[in-house]
Amino acid sequence: MTDKHSALQLDDDAQTPELAATYCGPLLMIESHIIDNRRQIEAWFREQWRHTPAPFYASVDLRNAGYKLGPVDTNLFPAGFNNLNHSFDPLVVHAIQSAVEHACPEARGMLIIPERHTRNRYYLESVATMAELFEMAGFETRIGSLDEIGEPQHFELPSGRTLVQHPICRVGRRIEVDDGFSPCTIVLNNDLSGGREELLEDIEQTVVPPTGLGWWNRSKFNHFSHYQALARELCERIDLDPWHLSPMILDCGQIDFMKREGEACLERKVGEMLDAIQAKYDALEIKEKPFVVIKADAGTYGMGVMMAQSTEDVVGLNRKQRTRMAASKDGRGINRVLIQEGIYSFEQLGSNGHVAEPVLYMIDRHVVGGFYRVHTKKGQSENLNSPGAEFVPLPFTQPCVLPAPDASPDSDQNRLYCYGVVARLALLAAAREQQDLIGGPSEPA
Amino acid sequence: MTDKHSALQLDDDAQTPELAATYCGPLLMIESHIIDNRRQIEAWFREQWRHTPAPFYASVDLRNAGYKLGPVDTNLFPAGFNNLNHSFDPLVVHAIQSAVEHACPEARGMLIIPERHTRNRYYLESVATMAELFEMAGFETRIGSLDEIGEPQHFELPSGRTLVQHPICRVGRRIEVDDGFSPCTIVLNNDLSGGREELLEDIEQTVVPPTGLGWWNRSKFNHFSHYQALARELCERIDLDPWHLSPMILDCGQIDFMKREGEACLERKVGEMLDAIQAKYDALEIKEKPFVVIKADAGTYGMGVMMAQSTEDVVGLNRKQRTRMAASKDGRGINRVLIQEGIYSFEQLGSNGHVAEPVLYMIDRHVVGGFYRVHTKKGQSENLNSPGAEFVPLPFTQPCVLPAPDASPDSDQNRLYCYGVVARLALLAAAREQQDLIGGPSEPA
Repeated sequence: MTDKHSALQLDDDAQTPELAATYCGPLLMIESHIIDNRRQIEAWFREQWRHTPAPFYASVDLRNAGYKLGPVDTNLFPAGFNNLNHSFDPLVVHAIQSAVEHACPEARGMLIIPERHTRNRYYLESVATMAELFEMAGFETRIGSLDEIGEPQHFELPSGRTLVQHPICRVGRRIEVDDGFSPCTIVLNNDLSGGREELLEDIEQTVVPPTGLGWWNRSKFNHFSHYQALARELCERIDLDPWHLSPMILDCGQIDFMKREGEACLERKVGEMLDAIQAKYDALEIKEKPFVVIKADAGTYGMGVMMAQSTEDVVGLNRKQRTRMAASKDGRGINRVLIQEGIYSFEQLGSNGHVAEPVLYMIDRHVVGGFYRVHTKKGQSENLNSPGAEFVPLPFTQPCVLPAPDASPDSDQNRLYCYGVVARLALLAAAREQQDLIGGPSEPA
Repeated sequence: MTDKHSALQLDDDAQTPELAATYCGPLLMIESHIIDNRRQIEAWFREQWRHTPAPFYASVDLRNAGYKLGPVDTNLFPAGFNNLNHSFDPLVVHAIQSAVEHACPEARGMLIIPERHTRNRYYLESVATMAELFEMAGFETRIGSLDEIGEPQHFELPSGRTLVQHPICRVGRRIEVDDGFSPCTIVLNNDLSGGREELLEDIEQTVVPPTGLGWWNRSKFNHFSHYQALARELCERIDLDPWHLSPMILDCGQIDFMKREGEACLERKVGEMLDAIQAKYDALEIKEKPFVVIKADAGTYGMGVMMAQSTEDVVGLNRKQRTRMAASKDGRGINRVLIQEGIYSFEQLGSNGHVAEPVLYMIDRHVVGGFYRVHTKKGQSENLNSPGAEFVPLPFTQPCVLPAPDASPDSDQNRLYCYGVVARLALLAAAREQQDLIGGPSEPA
């Protein structure tokens, strides 16, 4: 939840990002394929949701290289709701109502539990927006704090809103709020990177998403394995090479950067992955230089992430680099990494060619919108969601819900619909993870 | 489905209708009450939907007199989808997906069955819009015809679209379409005023809404009895006199206008109703003249409807008047009428003071938008949905989903939210009717 973005304003000429012209050909192939097969795709998703209920909510980071469009991160405790286009609030409200119907139908009052120890105003803007949206959906809502705060804490936000974090406490098997509010449902917006929270264990209220979906329990490798299987399954039905939608992944067993254990394995696997990408690029006559992303298998938010374009990039790391890779958010050590095929970001905005990367938001099975992270400094292969990465959010001007079969496959509406399809594929992978981890979506944690 | 509207264009100064200033006081009371109690209202609705699933779709005609805001007609086979604001299409698509999930989760292909024998282009525009929305929601969709048409019929619509009605036939226990399309689900947009359709009986495909919700089986008195009970139940929780949301009704047993049987009963009940309204008006110091509406207990669309401001208006009807009251759509005779408290339309549009009456659309439990019937000729107590009534549709500029507690209770957003609450109350009444008539929403008809 350390998404930071600068106070930079985008130029007035900034409109919708466009793919660099070189890559439009292959992208239109992907998009045309998705648009032409939209009915099969939607029918397939409906069938999947019947067997595998969707997580409560999620955001998915996508990368669009034109010849390849895939997810790189799936967040089950999403932040950034403040970056969505307010015109789609009614869509969010519908989706919240569906999510509650599926996960905790008897809910009346909601308690949002955000990240600990955060004074990041952009994150708090997101929490304030969430609270507003739940209120608009007809739920009385409070924000509680896992920190030891003796009394309510007020935060003045850049938007002019005031956010109040309430002290909460455990009374028997319930969580209660200082002002006497007794929530039916706990909406967790804390990814539990640091492990389970005792306060949330064994309580009678429903916790959504369940604590079992926290990073203490998730594995990116597992997520992307499900994603790959699903991409294969869908692509078979629509006769598309699944590589176009799916980053390759490799797992590297245990690794200890500080003790330099596992380095040889890492080097070998990075080499394998780069070769595999190169083979694919050669076959498709793609002239780019392959790269891989190495990231902590659990946890997120741009710590413990590195890029490599050759095996040399991962051997003989200096102490600073190793320290950086060895620690993730909340100081949890990294002992397992995911090696992921890098996908270039070839979407650019305006005359300055700023790199733009889409983030999609889903509640229940519904895509409710998204925004572009428009990066004003970094390059096309760098990780935009890294510490200190500054971005300007550019809310989508359209929801990602409606295909426009009569419009060009490259129209904004169709491109966003395709993003929605890929994001839902990642959501479905998370639904399968959820089924693995906790056996169902609506069980109290 | 004989909604006709003229090709009149509204003046450029036409914006959102406003209540005549005299009546703002009491309306603000109703609206303030609803906005202040929005959480209780939403929680109550959620609870109700858990026990009584919503019909597949509906439209509700409202009347707003300022001191009273109530439904006057609930259509379970709605037309007029073409009059909705296209910006809310994503909302409709979400709602269709929820409706299908609840009523026929395995659906893939949809067959819309519209009214028979209609060449009304405004109605066909609505059917074409429905088909487009189902397609956008990811369902392959055809429009079938109950008429004996040997081959597909093409209609050029004012919007420039072409609508194709396909011949359909029964093959065993299935309905099939001429082009080989085999639908999973039949979406009925025919209110069955003329009785059951043999073709639709005992088929293995799911029919939504079920044929048991057709006018051959519904009773307005039954609908409004449920509505009254629900308005009482809700108003008790929010401490509001239910009269403000609920038209009084009386039933009059069997009546035969042509044979003049039942006239004495009608006269007596109209008198009783006018007295009851007058008593309420006196208590609340409302200076208007009470009126009642007498309409066929089954069927709709403005045939067999009359207004009365005194008992003299209903005795000694001339032959023409009696003939008009004796026949409803599809020539089905009227033998039972509903006597309903008349609600004035005090919403006016623009400098010309055109009367404007809201119509709200719901799919599943969700309000998805609506429009104002703006009438350029008729008066405030006349039935705008009568044969030959010409109106100009003015789509709502906002969905009716979000209350705005910080805005004035008279703001457009809050007024439309209140309309949404009253419309959902009527939807819930229809859900109870549905439970009475067919025992559940998702059973094949």
